[in-house]
Amino acid sequence: AMAAREGLTIGSINPNVFQDPAYQFGSFGHRDAAVRRKAIDAHLDCIRIAQATGSPAISLWYADGTNYPGQDDFRARHRRFAECFREVHAALPPGLRMFIEYKCFEPAFYHTDVQDWGTALLFAERFDERVQVLVDTGHHLPGCNIEHIVALLLERGRLGGFHFNDRKYADDDLTVAAINPYQLFLVLLEMVKAEDDADARVADCARACAYAFDQCPNHKPTVESVIQSALRVQELYAKALHVDQAALRAAQDGADLVAAEEVLQDAYHTDVRPLLRAWRAQKGLPEQPLDAYRASGLREQAAAERGARV
Amino acid sequence: AMAAREGLTIGSINPNVFQDPAYQFGSFGHRDAAVRRKAIDAHLDCIRIAQATGSPAISLWYADGTNYPGQDDFRARHRRFAECFREVHAALPPGLRMFIEYKCFEPAFYHTDVQDWGTALLFAERFDERVQVLVDTGHHLPGCNIEHIVALLLERGRLGGFHFNDRKYADDDLTVAAINPYQLFLVLLEMVKAEDDADARVADCARACAYAFDQCPNHKPTVESVIQSALRVQELYAKALHVDQAALRAAQDGADLVAAEEVLQDAYHTDVRPLLRAWRAQKGLPEQPLDAYRASGLREQAAAERGARV
Amino acid sequence: AMAAREGLTIGSINPNVFQDPAYQFGSFGHRDAAVRRKAIDAHLDCIRIAQATGSPAISLWYADGTNYPGQDDFRARHRRFAECFREVHAALPPGLRMFIEYKCFEPAFYHTDVQDWGTALLFAERFDERVQVLVDTGHHLPGCNIEHIVALLLERGRLGGFHFNDRKYADDDLTVAAINPYQLFLVLLEMVKAEDDADARVADCARACAYAFDQCPNHKPTVESVIQSALRVQELYAKALHVDQAALRAAQDGADLVAAEEVLQDAYHTDVRPLLRAWRAQKGLPEQPLDAYRASGLREQAAAERGARV
Amino acid sequence: AMAAREGLTIGSINPNVFQDPAYQFGSFGHRDAAVRRKAIDAHLDCIRIAQATGSPAISLWYADGTNYPGQDDFRARHRRFAECFREVHAALPPGLRMFIEYKCFEPAFYHTDVQDWGTALLFAERFDERVQVLVDTGHHLPGCNIEHIVALLLERGRLGGFHFNDRKYADDDLTVAAINPYQLFLVLLEMVKAEDDADARVADCARACAYAFDQCPNHKPTVESVIQSALRVQELYAKALHVDQAALRAAQDGADLVAAEEVLQDAYHTDVRPLLRAWRAQKGLPEQPLDAYRASGLREQAAAERGARV
Repeated sequence: AMAAREGLTIGSINPNVFQDPAYQFGSFGHRDAAVRRKAIDAHLDCIRIAQATGSPAISLWYADGTNYPGQDDFRARHRRFAECFREVHAALPPGLRMFIEYKCFEPAFYHTDVQDWGTALLFAERFDERVQVLVDTGHHLPGCNIEHIVALLLERGRLGGFHFNDRKYADDDLTVAAINPYQLFLVLLEMVKAEDDADARVADCARACAYAFDQCPNHKPTVESVIQSALRVQELYAKALHVDQAALRAAQDGADLVAAEEVLQDAYHTDVRPLLRAWRAQKGLPEQPLDAYRASGLREQAAAERGARV
Repeated sequence: AMAAREGLTIGSINPNVFQDPAYQFGSFGHRDAAVRRKAIDAHLDCIRIAQATGSPAISLWYADGTNYPGQDDFRARHRRFAECFREVHAALPPGLRMFIEYKCFEPAFYHTDVQDWGTALLFAERFDERVQVLVDTGHHLPGCNIEHIVALLLERGRLGGFHFNDRKYADDDLTVAAINPYQLFLVLLEMVKAEDDADARVADCARACAYAFDQCPNHKPTVESVIQSALRVQELYAKALHVDQAALRAAQDGADLVAAEEVLQDAYHTDVRPLLRAWRAQKGLPEQPLDAYRASGLREQAAAERGARV
Repeated sequence: AMAAREGLTIGSINPNVFQDPAYQFGSFGHRDAAVRRKAIDAHLDCIRIAQATGSPAISLWYADGTNYPGQDDFRARHRRFAECFREVHAALPPGLRMFIEYKCFEPAFYHTDVQDWGTALLFAERFDERVQVLVDTGHHLPGCNIEHIVALLLERGRLGGFHFNDRKYADDDLTVAAINPYQLFLVLLEMVKAEDDADARVADCARACAYAFDQCPNHKPTVESVIQSALRVQELYAKALHVDQAALRAAQDGADLVAAEEVLQDAYHTDVRPLLRAWRAQKGLPEQPLDAYRASGLREQAAAERGARV
Repeated sequence: AMAAREGLTIGSINPNVFQDPAYQFGSFGHRDAAVRRKAIDAHLDCIRIAQATGSPAISLWYADGTNYPGQDDFRARHRRFAECFREVHAALPPGLRMFIEYKCFEPAFYHTDVQDWGTALLFAERFDERVQVLVDTGHHLPGCNIEHIVALLLERGRLGGFHFNDRKYADDDLTVAAINPYQLFLVLLEMVKAEDDADARVADCARACAYAFDQCPNHKPTVESVIQSALRVQELYAKALHVDQAALRAAQDGADLVAAEEVLQDAYHTDVRPLLRAWRAQKGLPEQPLDAYRASGLREQAAAERGARV
């Protein structure tokens, strides 16, 4: 099953309309049709670039929202979004997927137009199954059960991908598993279970799910922070694979909460790192990627090249 | 417009499967078909009672969920819920509405099967428009923008009703508007706007929306606490009616955030109580309901009768 | 009592060590004594500027914290902070006050060295009563009862001042009272009560308390947003003054929760704006400050001058 | 170091004034001196029982608080608490410790008199070092950094003990480490570091710290849930002991955030269970306590005895 993930690559093209001052009061949610037109055109450009580069998906996140009560009409904005999505979807060529990302707040501080998985899914289900939801693990309100949302999106065949990171307070974009590794283990366990689901729609959705990082180094060297995140996802995915599914089902069948939880804790506390080192060695990869990167001098070399350019 | 709300009554019949020990591990989400059968039958009883009593709706809240990771399978539970709703819906006679309520946590501490408006709406939209979502204002995670959810449910024609109360931390079930009256003003403003919407589906949904209290006295005399809640809803609804919609739209059209917010704050800070007292006087009701109740001796009388029975 | 606040001015000088790259890993919490020295010197400069300009206080906020578990030692950092504060306090001339501000997170995402009122007060109480705590209303975790903290700081004689703003999620720095005006009313009610406290230490603390805004316009014109905030504080302070303290005490004495709450709600729902307009007229100020500013052409003039400079 | 914890036992006597209807509106915070007298007497009884039974501590948690704004005066209640603590402390015999526990909300929904570590510590520091703070890991607002609080209490020599449990939303009282085992690892790492601190006051405080569970089975068999919690604390404490403190300090000295975090993650992902099994075998204890309990028939036996009594 580890092999199933080996070849995974994800390229996605983001219209990134956030940066343009024209979008100060929104892109797809904007009152002005000209601004929405401009935003739609940016999406059409993305589609062309995705095709030219062979990217399997376009990944859409919107900074749209309002900062103050009364600033705009929630329902009018929702309808504008739906209409813009309709145009983008109409231009989507066969085989290209389209991910809609949600976020509870920030940069908008009063309301976000695509604020949660429910709104993102409402939009996605207006269209065919290529339109899916992207889960950024840092985009939820405090206490939200993310693995439950992941399971429901899989059930609908609409989980498109992940942006992995960790958080303690808001969208902190910390290194993956820096704050709560067990939560990511539980999320990945939903993926592992879905990959082998009897329902082909669920299994296909899980297998096609795009994994990406969306983290910010936060005072760490960027590449090292990404290596840490990659190690954590590998380790936690291997732990999830290690769960004894038959024992778990048996415990669940008997409403044996203690046994069910111990099956999970047993897999979680198993040290899978020797297995992962062997797997890397077998593939001719460095067994200890972080040490190898540090020993490689690549960071210093890149810094020198940047310095020379400046 | 105040008159539009005058005659509103809501009777709803709740299966209240929560209390039965058979449902320790769930009702519609339970693994055992016999338990689900029992729960469905309880719903069918409710439908019969609703018909016999002329109740316009059945109102469904589920304590279903899990307390620990691994305890049960999220997707299997979701499918069981969908199947049970299908059976209940099939038995729903013409004219009877069915409200699905959501709650983020409690009594379950790890996951709740119907945890948010997105899940409730997914279930509701499997069926015709009589199946709607009920919003309890205390059932959201910290920071959640409730008025946005209300607007989206109205847009889908699926807002069935409210359970009004207030909260500071969790589902505290405090007297309405005890903690944040402005939030309820913003919720009711969505109702006021939708009641006059050009889209008949939205306007009908808003006008048919059922208002109820779901509060707990928390050391207050019960009836007095309910009177307080009723006063607050009246006052805040009257303030919402007082919003100058034309001025609001003009400010929104000009992206004048300051003017838009001042329109809201102006209505909110207006003292509508003289108006409400006059409205009550005109209807032969006590102008000051709380004073009238205190002066009536009803509380002492009821206590004496309870004492006599014991 | 309104008059008591009329003449209030607050000038405070902030070392603002946040901006300097030397402080990437902290200022007073930094491991390197040279960085701490630099930070202390910045404080000593502030003290000199405060004296030169007649500022009554220096106001200290620290971006210090860590982003990841293990990054540094909590207790060692705490001790470094205490030592740096000792040096700054030693240089504090008679009559100059020193405010320590706290914040639960951001810019640091794992821990903040002065994260809550408890830590700020621990530091303040190492020194004489000129060292006090500053409450920024946006710097608390979700659900925090801010008025309770304000009361406890008053009780200790250590409430130095406020940074007013409002928030829905994190430190959103919205216009004052944009999200929950009732909360600010409750905070200001603590001030009103303390100003007349029999305990001179409490009353002096309340009367000397420094009021300031710390908000960000968030897509609003800056000056207009500040005018809105000033109006809100005036209105809510006037409502707090309007509370019938004798009736409140009587209700509290009788454990009559309903009556006590109605005393508050009655004052809160009273429209104090006519009174405030009269008060402004009497002082020769514009009755409607926002309209007056908009009519003044000052904004356009300032924009033109900025344009000319560029 | 594991041995240092071997002999730990904690007996504490709680006045548990919560259950008595006399305390509906508070115990130490109550307006009525007779109620406070009654509550103080309950504490004096506890002290006598603690002496008679050889308990090393009395452990004090208060349900005191208010449900609604205006219900009572924060500062008056605080002063009443301080006065009651003074009386209890005056009766505290040599050698007996007194722990003050805090809780952010519940059963009170508006304010709690001892709501956070800051308030608890303020009370404790009015007295000698036998009066300390007890940290229940479920009694904090969302996002709170508990290990930071633990470190600060250790620094003051005022950490008395823990009530271990886990939570996802509020004070859920779940089995220890059911939701975020890494967080408890970080808390225990503070203990491990403090136990060897050069400052004897800190080291003594850490070594004397009382460990207890305060969890609720939540649909699990009670004893099994406690065994799970005990296993988790042992495992996470052993992982914390496994942290390479010299490597951690070296990484911290070099501001090498990546290396510092990897030291922690390395210890955390190490499987310490074989070591713990060996340690148990060496002491003649069952290597797998949960299996041993299940095989023992003790649960069935206890159930039968309870049945016979009924």
